[in-house]
Amino acid sequence: MGNSDTLKRRGLMFVLSSPSGAGKTTMARRLLVEDDEIAMSVSVTTRPQRPGEVDGKDYIFATRERFMEMVEADEFLEWAEVFGNHYGTPKAQIKAGLKEGRDFLFDIDWQGTQQLYQRAEADVVRVFLLPPSIGELERRLSSRGTDSAEVIAGRMARARSEISHWDGYDYVVVNDDMDACFAKVCTILQAERMRRARQTGLVSFVRDLTA
Amino acid sequence: MGNSDTLKRRGLMFVLSSPSGAGKTTMARRLLVEDDEIAMSVSVTTRPQRPGEVDGKDYIFATRERFMEMVEADEFLEWAEVFGNHYGTPKAQIKAGLKEGRDFLFDIDWQGTQQLYQRAEADVVRVFLLPPSIGELERRLSSRGTDSAEVIAGRMARARSEISHWDGYDYVVVNDDMDACFAKVCTILQAERMRRARQTGLVSFVRDLTA
Repeated sequence: MGNSDTLKRRGLMFVLSSPSGAGKTTMARRLLVEDDEIAMSVSVTTRPQRPGEVDGKDYIFATRERFMEMVEADEFLEWAEVFGNHYGTPKAQIKAGLKEGRDFLFDIDWQGTQQLYQRAEADVVRVFLLPPSIGELERRLSSRGTDSAEVIAGRMARARSEISHWDGYDYVVVNDDMDACFAKVCTILQAERMRRARQTGLVSFVRDLTA
Repeated sequence: MGNSDTLKRRGLMFVLSSPSGAGKTTMARRLLVEDDEIAMSVSVTTRPQRPGEVDGKDYIFATRERFMEMVEADEFLEWAEVFGNHYGTPKAQIKAGLKEGRDFLFDIDWQGTQQLYQRAEADVVRVFLLPPSIGELERRLSSRGTDSAEVIAGRMARARSEISHWDGYDYVVVNDDMDACFAKVCTILQAERMRRARQTGLVSFVRDLTA
């Protein structure tokens, strides 16, 4: 006792969504490196294992039959089909981790976020990143320089469509500077950890204070 | 556009509560000095004006009759009687401020917090500060050295009673170090400002992005 940092807390699911080109992947990677209390959940997937990938660490590889059995048995918090392959977040792993105070990072789109929220509302914190302007987004999406105008237009259309779901999130951060944006994302995560409802250790702490 | 800091936002009411001796007043003063976007609301009071106090700045001084008229007309967000004097937060002032993106700090007890929350749920962020231990609380409450055991016991009883309402708050921070506690309070305030629902400027910002 006496040190708030030692108080037990319940973990949370931290969702980062953004259109492609708004910095979601950069933010997610940096968060995983700089914050010891958060990790990616390991997804189950039907896509073939690639050289160097470790089953159970990078992904849990499964056949389509096995995956569909898990869907039927309601073993996923959210799942989706992307380019013919299936990806899903297994419930049991997350449930155990949250109880032990571990946080999970989700780099998912608005549909995955909606599924996750419907199933675990109180444990989910949803953050949406926006590009600073449409010009900047276009610049980022075409910066490879080798893509045709048509390909870029397709990306822009998908980005606009993703952005249109911004209002299904708890927090919105405009990413006009990578460092400032990262600091804001960390601020949100740290504040959410201090929510009374997540600080499960407080019950006995307060009991001792008022005894 | 292009700079997220210029986006319009709705203000919030930031409530700090704690038992006497847990650092609430220190935190409140420091917040007012270090954060330009937050201010105390000016309370209406029936207590006599003291030398040096400016009507309309320190307090809005009112007769008991006038105060009760305001109560009847539902012009307070919260009000209370303390040692025979009345204190109340006038609605109109806060309403106008929030709309302009100003935040208001409330240094009130759990009953005031409850009133405020019932009337303005979405705009209220409730933070409760806890002392690090009962021994430390007793030390802080008796540190003047001149008080009788009875006086100290009375203070401790009031502190315990206040603490028992910790679960009516959104966030709880254990104040075992003034600087660390202040940093945590600031983190909560900054995160709450980034809530999507408060960022009223986002609507037109996103409209432009997806146009």
